[in-house]
Amino acid sequence: MHKYVYKFAEGNKDMREILGGKGANLAEMARLGFPVPQGFTISTEACTKYYEDGREISEEIQEQINAHIAWLEQENGKKFGDPSEPLLVSVRSGSRASMPGMMDTILNLGLNDIAVEGFAKKTNNPRFAYDSYRRFIQMYSDVVMEVSKKEFEAKIDALKEKRGVSLDVDLTVEDLKELVADFKATYKAALGKEFPQDAKEQLMGAVKAVFKSWDNPRANVYRQMNDIPYSWGTAVNVQTMVFGNMGDTSGTGVAFSRNPATGEPGLMGEYLMNAQGEDVVAGVRTPEKVETSLKEHNPAVYEQLLNTATKLENHFHDMQDMEFTVQEGKLYMLQTRNGKRTAAAALRIACDLVDEGLITEQEALSMIDPKSLDQLLHPQFDSKALKSAKEIAVGLNASPGAATGKVVFEAEDVVTWVKEKGEKKVILVRLETSPEDIVGMQYAQGILTVRGGMTSHAAVVARGMGTCCVSGCGNGNEVSIDEEKKVITINGVTFKEGDYMSLDGSTGKIYAEEIKTVPADVNSGYFGRIMAWSDKYTAMKVRTNADSPKDAKQAIAFGANGIGLCRTEHMFFAEDRIPAIREMICSDTIEQRKAALAKILPMQQSDFEGLYEVMEGRDVTIRFLDPPLHEFVPTDEKDIELLAKTQGKTVEQVKNIIASLEEFNPMMGHRGCRLTVTYPEIAEMQTRAVMQAAINVGKKHPDWHIVAEIMIPLVGEVKELKYVKNIVVATAEAVLAENGLTKEQAPYQVGTMIEIPRAALTADEIAKEAEFFSFGTNDLTQMTFGFSRDDAGKFLKSYYDTKIYESDPFAKLDQTGVGQLVKMACDLGKQTRPDISLGICGEHGGDPATIEFCHKVGLTYVSCSPYRVPIARLAAAQANIKYPRG
Amino acid sequence: MHKYVYKFAEGNKDMREILGGKGANLAEMARLGFPVPQGFTISTEACTKYYEDGREISEEIQEQINAHIAWLEQENGKKFGDPSEPLLVSVRSGSRASMPGMMDTILNLGLNDIAVEGFAKKTNNPRFAYDSYRRFIQMYSDVVMEVSKKEFEAKIDALKEKRGVSLDVDLTVEDLKELVADFKATYKAALGKEFPQDAKEQLMGAVKAVFKSWDNPRANVYRQMNDIPYSWGTAVNVQTMVFGNMGDTSGTGVAFSRNPATGEPGLMGEYLMNAQGEDVVAGVRTPEKVETSLKEHNPAVYEQLLNTATKLENHFHDMQDMEFTVQEGKLYMLQTRNGKRTAAAALRIACDLVDEGLITEQEALSMIDPKSLDQLLHPQFDSKALKSAKEIAVGLNASPGAATGKVVFEAEDVVTWVKEKGEKKVILVRLETSPEDIVGMQYAQGILTVRGGMTSHAAVVARGMGTCCVSGCGNGNEVSIDEEKKVITINGVTFKEGDYMSLDGSTGKIYAEEIKTVPADVNSGYFGRIMAWSDKYTAMKVRTNADSPKDAKQAIAFGANGIGLCRTEHMFFAEDRIPAIREMICSDTIEQRKAALAKILPMQQSDFEGLYEVMEGRDVTIRFLDPPLHEFVPTDEKDIELLAKTQGKTVEQVKNIIASLEEFNPMMGHRGCRLTVTYPEIAEMQTRAVMQAAINVGKKHPDWHIVAEIMIPLVGEVKELKYVKNIVVATAEAVLAENGLTKEQAPYQVGTMIEIPRAALTADEIAKEAEFFSFGTNDLTQMTFGFSRDDAGKFLKSYYDTKIYESDPFAKLDQTGVGQLVKMACDLGKQTRPDISLGICGEHGGDPATIEFCHKVGLTYVSCSPYRVPIARLAAAQANIKYPRG
Repeated sequence: MHKYVYKFAEGNKDMREILGGKGANLAEMARLGFPVPQGFTISTEACTKYYEDGREISEEIQEQINAHIAWLEQENGKKFGDPSEPLLVSVRSGSRASMPGMMDTILNLGLNDIAVEGFAKKTNNPRFAYDSYRRFIQMYSDVVMEVSKKEFEAKIDALKEKRGVSLDVDLTVEDLKELVADFKATYKAALGKEFPQDAKEQLMGAVKAVFKSWDNPRANVYRQMNDIPYSWGTAVNVQTMVFGNMGDTSGTGVAFSRNPATGEPGLMGEYLMNAQGEDVVAGVRTPEKVETSLKEHNPAVYEQLLNTATKLENHFHDMQDMEFTVQEGKLYMLQTRNGKRTAAAALRIACDLVDEGLITEQEALSMIDPKSLDQLLHPQFDSKALKSAKEIAVGLNASPGAATGKVVFEAEDVVTWVKEKGEKKVILVRLETSPEDIVGMQYAQGILTVRGGMTSHAAVVARGMGTCCVSGCGNGNEVSIDEEKKVITINGVTFKEGDYMSLDGSTGKIYAEEIKTVPADVNSGYFGRIMAWSDKYTAMKVRTNADSPKDAKQAIAFGANGIGLCRTEHMFFAEDRIPAIREMICSDTIEQRKAALAKILPMQQSDFEGLYEVMEGRDVTIRFLDPPLHEFVPTDEKDIELLAKTQGKTVEQVKNIIASLEEFNPMMGHRGCRLTVTYPEIAEMQTRAVMQAAINVGKKHPDWHIVAEIMIPLVGEVKELKYVKNIVVATAEAVLAENGLTKEQAPYQVGTMIEIPRAALTADEIAKEAEFFSFGTNDLTQMTFGFSRDDAGKFLKSYYDTKIYESDPFAKLDQTGVGQLVKMACDLGKQTRPDISLGICGEHGGDPATIEFCHKVGLTYVSCSPYRVPIARLAAAQANIKYPRG
Repeated sequence: MHKYVYKFAEGNKDMREILGGKGANLAEMARLGFPVPQGFTISTEACTKYYEDGREISEEIQEQINAHIAWLEQENGKKFGDPSEPLLVSVRSGSRASMPGMMDTILNLGLNDIAVEGFAKKTNNPRFAYDSYRRFIQMYSDVVMEVSKKEFEAKIDALKEKRGVSLDVDLTVEDLKELVADFKATYKAALGKEFPQDAKEQLMGAVKAVFKSWDNPRANVYRQMNDIPYSWGTAVNVQTMVFGNMGDTSGTGVAFSRNPATGEPGLMGEYLMNAQGEDVVAGVRTPEKVETSLKEHNPAVYEQLLNTATKLENHFHDMQDMEFTVQEGKLYMLQTRNGKRTAAAALRIACDLVDEGLITEQEALSMIDPKSLDQLLHPQFDSKALKSAKEIAVGLNASPGAATGKVVFEAEDVVTWVKEKGEKKVILVRLETSPEDIVGMQYAQGILTVRGGMTSHAAVVARGMGTCCVSGCGNGNEVSIDEEKKVITINGVTFKEGDYMSLDGSTGKIYAEEIKTVPADVNSGYFGRIMAWSDKYTAMKVRTNADSPKDAKQAIAFGANGIGLCRTEHMFFAEDRIPAIREMICSDTIEQRKAALAKILPMQQSDFEGLYEVMEGRDVTIRFLDPPLHEFVPTDEKDIELLAKTQGKTVEQVKNIIASLEEFNPMMGHRGCRLTVTYPEIAEMQTRAVMQAAINVGKKHPDWHIVAEIMIPLVGEVKELKYVKNIVVATAEAVLAENGLTKEQAPYQVGTMIEIPRAALTADEIAKEAEFFSFGTNDLTQMTFGFSRDDAGKFLKSYYDTKIYESDPFAKLDQTGVGQLVKMACDLGKQTRPDISLGICGEHGGDPATIEFCHKVGLTYVSCSPYRVPIARLAAAQANIKYPRG
């Protein structure tokens, strides 16, 4: 019989795969003697089996659950549904990776019409008992049976109005009994059957609901965003209830062992007296600070918590995020995990832990999510502009960074404004956010909420996304919001939809104006230390994809080692150049074509000189013309007429030329090195431009070691490369001769993109000619999958919905298929040319998972967009720490 | 020192790679004691080195050649350029594969102003000597120095006119001397230097010319057509001259040991008294039959030739094609090779040789070129139609088969008419053909020449191509042709361009009308025996690609074992169906789409029933909808309006739908199984149609074992296949249940195309779901090379010109790249599912070289177009004979 259910005592922190993160850490805390209410975990394997069995919990698993309930009853001396000593449990999800707000929780399970009486007697608090019962019915209906909680809330509001009271706590026991009866009737009306009185039936329903929630749309979106495989499944934790809502000696809270926003040392958290956990998480009531509130009300418990936090941090070697409940003066730990943090906090915590001797530099690097660095690379407020800006309010600094943009009030509106209206900067303002808002939050520059604290949904999700967030601005400020009318007034300043607002997520400050932002600095402070360690422990260089001196400068500021991909066609599109390109395309003879190219030559040469100047001797790989020629022809009638006139042709003739360039599948057409095979003049001109630029800049800066790296795109056959290389070499040698130089004095290399499957399959042959490889994983992905990026949008959504693909193969390299070709090409290339330089210049080059793969297959460098360079530096170091190169 | 030159005595028939076919066989004949004039062969390696050295003959090779000339001088007791005993040689090309008419030959090399005197004295025939000299200058100028031979011919004609004579032989010695002087002057005028008098200089020039001719356009076209690698190079044979033009006891001829047109046993050939070889080959004079002419003039030599032919055939175990010269009554063998033959002759010769006990059945199969069978599959004249047809003349039956079509007079016109005007049937009529006509000849249904015999250029090339040819119709008929005015009159019947003509290449008959043609029979006679042996020795089945009962019937007649690919989209395009397809495409809801599909279902089902009926229980693999939906939408304004009306939509709305289906790269877009992922209803309908059809036909014919084979196109990921398969299986099971049947009673299988590189790379995973694989090598080629077939036309010509590709990767599978993926997929597929059925259904499935590859990687079957089935059956057997499966 396979084991699907584990007592906490049977687990430990290394069993995340089976027990989920929450279950494994509960087991670990129990094992270490911390005060954890007893319980058990239903494994992730049970979840997988649930889906395999067509969304049913098998007999076998039900039996194991029931056996553990029997054990829990015995341990607690309580019984499910017992009239005097009823056992109540919480049912909570917990997957291998933390998925905040995504999964559903049920508290007070076990209550029924009889048990509620026993519970009232036992606690000597009928009000509390019936309040718990009505909460349970409400939660169970909502989460398990999908009856909207709004119906129930409307009933509470109606009753409060009827009684003339404004707060829940003002309702009497009788009122609550009436609500319970009402709720049960609502349940029956909605579902056609009675609310289940059998606690075991309740439990199986709840477990099923947790399993099912693994597949809900919010969970799927979250997983897709965070690269969490669907196959992992979730575990379910069933734990004896403890109650934070048993009066003022009780309460519930969340605490971090260090500040998750800044990384500053010291316990910080939130505590809500006389409340259950969901009150905190949902952000419905704004909690107080744990270090004031709890310390004041119960200094002994506060000390115990402080002590526990330190012990846990020392044990897990990382900042801890803990949930706890105080029941009648006694502390219970309900959860601990490595805390989510802002990137800034992550950097500081990593450095501090190294300085405190708790971890090594390598461990420090490994604990930082490279993708999170992105938030630190985004603009901060320009300090001058900030001086003249007037803050109108301060909220909670829930997620750092500066944001400025136009206000919208619905998450869907963010998507519409950004994707359809092309608005670049939008601020989402909400009373509070909920999981339904997650997609809209992705596209917002910043998020402002009226309600909710540092651990509210908005705050947690925004930090995860690296989006600036100010939360709970309704606390301490005069705020009124009307989401339907789309208007918010903060301390007298009114914002309508479309008005400018600026937020500082690091300070919580709110501004009623647009404020200029400036880029961040990665070379000093904690960021600088982490980057320095990254370069110390990496085995791969990081280059950038840049076509302009501006991009190249930015990349150098972010620590790029060189340019891995300079696309030369971008230079062709400039307004002063496109006429010459079009002249070349319209040429009838080689002579005409050469004449047109001669006009482009000096411009292209000066582009390259500009790049070489900025790069100060760093490597620069220049890729020759790649796109099909039809991309350069005019589509506009006027432009066509103009071209005809300058070319001495009729409009008809020019249109014929344009028509002759049309392609059925431009992606797979006459482009890349195929252009050189038909028009060698183009490669001759480009070679001349590269060589002369390198020579000219090299003369000015004799201390720079400039090697002209010429990269031939779209090669699929060694003879093709050889043909093109011959043209390049002949031209390069001619330029050298004209300048009275030797190749030793002005060296150059000819290499190729590996972006056609056949190139990867025959890389041993290709390496005979190619002095370096650079993997063009964008095209390689398109051809290996057989779909073009431009067209795949039409069906990829269906593929995500049906779980055929879980991540975008254009963002994260498909290691199974495309990666196999990359690995093959590396191995074959090295067979022929052991010291061959191997790089990647597809967009995947900035993706940490892909970078790890690149490290494993032995690449020399990765090349990515400038804003990805720091991420790539860290990811490359992490890869080498995880899989050291021999 | 590497050996580049071999005496004939140093070689043998197994040294073709180094000595070329001609050289190896000359060596073999010399070794066996046949009368071969002495000489030596400059190896193919020397040719390769010539190209490596930038088209120069290296010192080393020159030295070896000179040493062999010295040896030849000694052997013959003659000297190069000697005034009394001059050595004359022939210089002839000879590559590994025979390339008739492609390479250039030079005779009488060694003559100069002094040697000609010696030669005249020695032969006591000054006329002959000066005629040889003028021929040599003419040939050398033309072939080595590229001075057009027309200039020389004009001079001869002018002199004849001046002298008032009509034949060359009427010119006197003095006339010839005058011509020699004139020719040398022409040479100097054209090239600015004297005609070379140094025989060694002449020789090096000639050798260079042969090497260079390997790269001439005609040679390149021929190689491309016949899959001969450029890298092979050609050898050069230098042989002591013998003379067929030394009076009536001399002559030259070509003979076959069996009839190359019909395969009938017995020597046949052509003999030209008092002539040199090129007179025969060029078709300038029409020769007489060897078995009458030579037998009459020189019965002893005829007997010797007959005897030699038999010995050579017994030695080479194949029909021989021999060149010989009789010099003053003595026979010299100048060449022997396995003779080219028509397909009909090849079949008969193979069968006869088996019956004669000379070869085994396997050897018989191996000696037939599978591609050549194509000519026997083409229509013959319908016997009824032929009865009422009136023949107007009989020419030589140069290449068999029947042809009917419109007359054109220029080879380029054939191309224009067929490719641009879309004329399907064109007959090329020429005075005689020359190598320049080769491209046009490819596209003609039939070829008629006025001059030339069975071994003329037209006859040899037509046989090679399998094109019907009647040659030399000017012999024995009253024929006048004016190629410029485009008119020919044959026995009083005048044909203008565009008039109908019919030719019977098997009888030589010419008709002045269009005559109905009928298909050939492959199941009886020699063809039947060869096909039966093929099936006996093959390891692979041969299926066909067929979508209609008509094609399927034809394929069965040609021996197909089943259908490997039934494309279902062809059925969608029919006029009575396309409205329903368009209705489906325009649907707003699943319900509407299902309603539209319900209209298509009965039609598609009846299509499948028709196929199952015709196939009589043979395997039928049905591929589900493959093309993108935009292929089905109307483009015509009227049709769009009509569609809008029937759909209750505005024209605007319909146009929007059409626009939304547009794709950037349709090849890599929303097609294949991707359609099923987004619209599962389509696969449901198709599954229902296939299953119900199989069940219905199965009920009618309980003795047939029908297995519904459903093939999913464009799979790239196992989860994708699994998703689609689940839909298919659920539908199939539902249909079974509706019919009260089990899967055992009406079995079905679900397999996949392997046509996406990623599918090949992950074939082990895919085989977990796929019950069979079929390689779609068209798409696989496109994606592996990264170019689409539709677009590649724009640049592939440049690729052939530059030798980057030597054959069309869409016709002959690229074994290096694409083949690697195929092999990988086979190995991985079998790893998971050892008994998996593996097929190929791309167009490559009918290409013999690809079939050999398919055999080697272990495919179960190949599937090709009906007309390729017999070719594939033979090629499959040959592959298994060459590489027997374990």
